[in-house]
Amino acid sequence: MPASVRARRRLIGRAGDSEGSRALPEETPIAFTYGRDTYAVMMATPSDLEDFAIGFSLTEGIVAAPSEIAELEIVDLPNGRELRMTLAPGRDEALLARRRRIAGPAGCGLCGIESLEAATRPPPAVASALHIGSNEIFRAMALLRGEQTLNALTKGVHAAGFWLDGALVAVREDVGRHNALDKLAGALARTGRSASAGVVVLTSRVSIELVQKTAMIGCPVIVAVSVPTALALRTAEAANITLVAIARDDSFEVFTHPERIGVAAHVD
Amino acid sequence: MPASVRARRRLIGRAGDSEGSRALPEETPIAFTYGRDTYAVMMATPSDLEDFAIGFSLTEGIVAAPSEIAELEIVDLPNGRELRMTLAPGRDEALLARRRRIAGPAGCGLCGIESLEAATRPPPAVASALHIGSNEIFRAMALLRGEQTLNALTKGVHAAGFWLDGALVAVREDVGRHNALDKLAGALARTGRSASAGVVVLTSRVSIELVQKTAMIGCPVIVAVSVPTALALRTAEAANITLVAIARDDSFEVFTHPERIGVAAHVD
Repeated sequence: MPASVRARRRLIGRAGDSEGSRALPEETPIAFTYGRDTYAVMMATPSDLEDFAIGFSLTEGIVAAPSEIAELEIVDLPNGRELRMTLAPGRDEALLARRRRIAGPAGCGLCGIESLEAATRPPPAVASALHIGSNEIFRAMALLRGEQTLNALTKGVHAAGFWLDGALVAVREDVGRHNALDKLAGALARTGRSASAGVVVLTSRVSIELVQKTAMIGCPVIVAVSVPTALALRTAEAANITLVAIARDDSFEVFTHPERIGVAAHVD
Repeated sequence: MPASVRARRRLIGRAGDSEGSRALPEETPIAFTYGRDTYAVMMATPSDLEDFAIGFSLTEGIVAAPSEIAELEIVDLPNGRELRMTLAPGRDEALLARRRRIAGPAGCGLCGIESLEAATRPPPAVASALHIGSNEIFRAMALLRGEQTLNALTKGVHAAGFWLDGALVAVREDVGRHNALDKLAGALARTGRSASAGVVVLTSRVSIELVQKTAMIGCPVIVAVSVPTALALRTAEAANITLVAIARDDSFEVFTHPERIGVAAHVD
């Protein structure tokens, strides 16, 4: 299934009308199953699905490493795709524990106070001595724009990239910003890269879930194009994550743990 | 709880640094409970919560009218807020049926093929003879910008508005675009306005869920600032919804059911 589709449309302008077409991003229901039982269905861009399966399993805390997924099969079904996973022996315990904690649609058996506690459970604090110069942040964001190939075509998808040792080593795109970050997490894990030595760069706003996912993979710095929510800020503060946002060509804003950002570097 | 919070931040520019502050949108976990059992938790802007409770219940198909919610109480809890609802006698059946259909986190007991079918279940087709001139679309979008008060402050939230008989009669804002539309749906229902006579206007991209929610309230036209997904287009086509997107100052693009748009009007 392609990641974009060309659609007919009628352009209506103040000066006149015309017929034509435009490339739209595809959106496909993706079911994550473990042992054939559905854990979640996400609407996502149908690309990099191995990365998505592994990254989602990591950021949800279902596995701690890709090796704990014993089997992964991508199955085409009439209404979408299934990422069919079998966990390694012993991992089912973590899955069951997670299921008991999580609050989601369909009635979870939790009362209001329990489900809210589950939703705001603080992520693990990130331990990393990473230090990064401001020039690197400007360079990372400039390079990210050049790597957004699906967005260049459709103007409708987000990207998540990873900046490591002066280079943008991976970029993933998706109609959902959470999915783009999950795909990135999977891509890093599959290539054996530790997220603790680099920076997650995002084209989007920053909600609490993006901070939680970044903490789950142990990455100490988030740089985003748009604004964070106040809850994302508080979560980043508690998780020892440096939160950089409103990253523009000539400036950016640091909301938490500024000690990781080398201010001197920007006068180079 | 306020909808925005002023946060300290350090502005780092190529020319120099400064300390200051910025208003950030708040984001709060909101638990929807029916009979004290959690149905869903959404991260949302903590405003217009009565609208949110009623609109979400309508677009999820749990109730068909606000009167079917016998009681609604907004409860402050340590980690968020609970929208505590009690359904009118006889409505629990619909809730249970919905729970059996829906696919969500936490393990739903469905296999991949069943959960994907549930996620893509077509919404009801909208029946409406509405006809609207292109000048009205330009005017609606221009007025919407002026009503985005929280976004003017924070640059971080979406809006959903309703255009009826030449006026923008309601606008709701939220960090989540789905939530903004649910709040709008609730506001319309509470004031007894039928969605079938007007247009939903959105500041966001258009995913399948926004089309499904619009169909659930019976509104025949969506106008959005940004692009739709290909799946949103197919869903709008099937639901008899006119999908207008990439709505700019001087042009917009019609993807489905263009017969509702009066092209002659734009030469007025």
